[in-house]
Amino acid sequence: MAEKKSLITMTTDFGEADYFVPAMKGVIYSINPAAEIVDLTHQIPPHDIYAAAFTLMCCYKDFPKDTLHLVVVDPGVGSARRPIMVMIDDYNFIGPDNGVFSYIYQRERVNRILHFTTEHYFRQPVSSTFHGRDVFAACAAYVSKPVDWRKMGEEVSDPVRFNTPTPAVLSARQIRGAAIHIDRFGNIITNITRAELTEEVIRAGARVRIGKHEATRVLSHFAEADPNELFAYFGSAGLLELAVPRQSAARLTEARRGVEVEVTVP
Amino acid sequence: MAEKKSLITMTTDFGEADYFVPAMKGVIYSINPAAEIVDLTHQIPPHDIYAAAFTLMCCYKDFPKDTLHLVVVDPGVGSARRPIMVMIDDYNFIGPDNGVFSYIYQRERVNRILHFTTEHYFRQPVSSTFHGRDVFAACAAYVSKPVDWRKMGEEVSDPVRFNTPTPAVLSARQIRGAAIHIDRFGNIITNITRAELTEEVIRAGARVRIGKHEATRVLSHFAEADPNELFAYFGSAGLLELAVPRQSAARLTEARRGVEVEVTVP
Amino acid sequence: MAEKKSLITMTTDFGEADYFVPAMKGVIYSINPAAEIVDLTHQIPPHDIYAAAFTLMCCYKDFPKDTLHLVVVDPGVGSARRPIMVMIDDYNFIGPDNGVFSYIYQRERVNRILHFTTEHYFRQPVSSTFHGRDVFAACAAYVSKPVDWRKMGEEVSDPVRFNTPTPAVLSARQIRGAAIHIDRFGNIITNITRAELTEEVIRAGARVRIGKHEATRVLSHFAEADPNELFAYFGSAGLLELAVPRQSAARLTEARRGVEVEVTVP
Repeated sequence: MAEKKSLITMTTDFGEADYFVPAMKGVIYSINPAAEIVDLTHQIPPHDIYAAAFTLMCCYKDFPKDTLHLVVVDPGVGSARRPIMVMIDDYNFIGPDNGVFSYIYQRERVNRILHFTTEHYFRQPVSSTFHGRDVFAACAAYVSKPVDWRKMGEEVSDPVRFNTPTPAVLSARQIRGAAIHIDRFGNIITNITRAELTEEVIRAGARVRIGKHEATRVLSHFAEADPNELFAYFGSAGLLELAVPRQSAARLTEARRGVEVEVTVP
Repeated sequence: MAEKKSLITMTTDFGEADYFVPAMKGVIYSINPAAEIVDLTHQIPPHDIYAAAFTLMCCYKDFPKDTLHLVVVDPGVGSARRPIMVMIDDYNFIGPDNGVFSYIYQRERVNRILHFTTEHYFRQPVSSTFHGRDVFAACAAYVSKPVDWRKMGEEVSDPVRFNTPTPAVLSARQIRGAAIHIDRFGNIITNITRAELTEEVIRAGARVRIGKHEATRVLSHFAEADPNELFAYFGSAGLLELAVPRQSAARLTEARRGVEVEVTVP
Repeated sequence: MAEKKSLITMTTDFGEADYFVPAMKGVIYSINPAAEIVDLTHQIPPHDIYAAAFTLMCCYKDFPKDTLHLVVVDPGVGSARRPIMVMIDDYNFIGPDNGVFSYIYQRERVNRILHFTTEHYFRQPVSSTFHGRDVFAACAAYVSKPVDWRKMGEEVSDPVRFNTPTPAVLSARQIRGAAIHIDRFGNIITNITRAELTEEVIRAGARVRIGKHEATRVLSHFAEADPNELFAYFGSAGLLELAVPRQSAARLTEARRGVEVEVTVP
């Protein structure tokens, strides 16, 4: 492992105004001076594990192999929710067992999930309100050193996950998906990928219905949309999105996370 | 010092939208390419040296030994206030001599305080408005190289400090402290630690009075509080705090920094 | 190049709440693990290439020689605007060919401008909406490795530039310049430097007119200004600025980027 950087990304809902994020970084550097920390974001809306899961999903694969992704969006801090590490071939993920890794479970083959139980690896004393520093940052730093993870806890097989619906291709002319994220511009991101909605179907005149509204075109570029047009396009996360130029598609359609999105060819 | 990182943290009120913070980082990297910079925060309210002092106090010890903490909250830039370095066994602190290191003076044995006077180590020309870049960042970079600090200025013994009241244990049933910080959620952070307010006193039924209001319980977790209840708890900085679930305790109690907080056992 | 860091700064209008910035960083670290990334700012107002150009101008020279400055403020993403690298003796600049490097063209001798055309160096598949990740970050990482830039595209000589007026010294008593930036406090930054407005002219009683308003004094420090006084001073970027204490000079004078600013000695 000589010469090798230990890259750790951080995703939290702590913001950047308080001592929370630097305290976590200080703990990491104290345990592993060779760690390199990259802020993924600290602006997850407070306690929004769905937004954290989505943001992580959109970029975890852009990082080098062996990057450790640390996520602390933890409404259950102080309760019995478990601190865990999810291990897949190319990445490790550390965070609370509250569903924040649901998309990883959906998309990846998980090799094992470790429940951190060995208090030796926690920052002492463990506060009741700041496990981000005392449990998660400390364990992430030890894993990145690397310490043998087998000493740090025990395997579990029943992680908490939220519902991550997969789109259903009902026929050559009908795909049923769902909205999985609303971004801060009000764009609606769905779970439909190019695997379901192929170029061929788009060319055949695919329309996208959400509630009582319909996007009649799947465009390649924002610039092609008409003013006030609800339109669909594939965003940079590889997912079908719905937008209205300079407006909130979510407000227009009253869409919320979880609502059905249907593609049809008339 | 081979292989060793020179860790420098930065605390400012510059925000992250302008060229101020990257200009400081550029100056540091230009002088010491081996420096590693960690943002503590750049969102200190403008000119609020009390908030900067508090934020630094809450996490400076989480960083590795020999970390240099650079603080530029400097309402007196351009005036005669001195640029200084405060040296303690494990850390150095660089910033304006305006009281921002008051908690360090209160909590640590200070080995020496250096007044940077040798202009050779300043970025030239020194602007009248941006000593963060021209004086503080440059001196921090030289100290981290390391340059012999003896060449960089002269020792002083009369640093500016603001009042940092220590809590008084008046009897086994009475502790008198003070509010030292209001965070952005309106939580009130006091100077009372577990050294004064022991588990035993809490179990005896300690109450916490602030102005005309009283918290009748010292809880272990936020989740135990009733709606609208003013309650006390030890926060992750190790200090007694007062809060109201989803409300501003500061607004409710009209508390400001400095007001008396009294713990009593009825 | 052994031991040498590859410093890359990032300037974008992406904000820090979404996956855009970390996705770019992940791509860079994946291609060049030795890269060191420094955030210049991600808070450029959306699509404001003038603000990006100004912010970059104010601090690019503070960074070490050979730093690569990556700027992604790209209203034309998906259109035919070219991804380019501007090479000067001490720095390289990568970004869209939309004028964002206009101040560099004005101030520096450009050795060459490369149009990135070799798709081999792009992240695949190239999305139509996120060239920041797929084109600019990937090319920046390869350049920093370093890969021979000759393989990455072709030289061009007709970069897009916006008007960067130079101040005119009309006589010993008259200088005509322009406002080039309004900062978020409403301060008006002009293109006039100490080369035009010398100490001698200031001492002779220089006044600064903007629209129907006039600053009758060029001060050394903010603190010297009277309440409500429109005054002029040289800011830390080395440029003449106009301000009103605790107010917006831009609102008072109704100034916008581009308006004329005239210095006269009565």
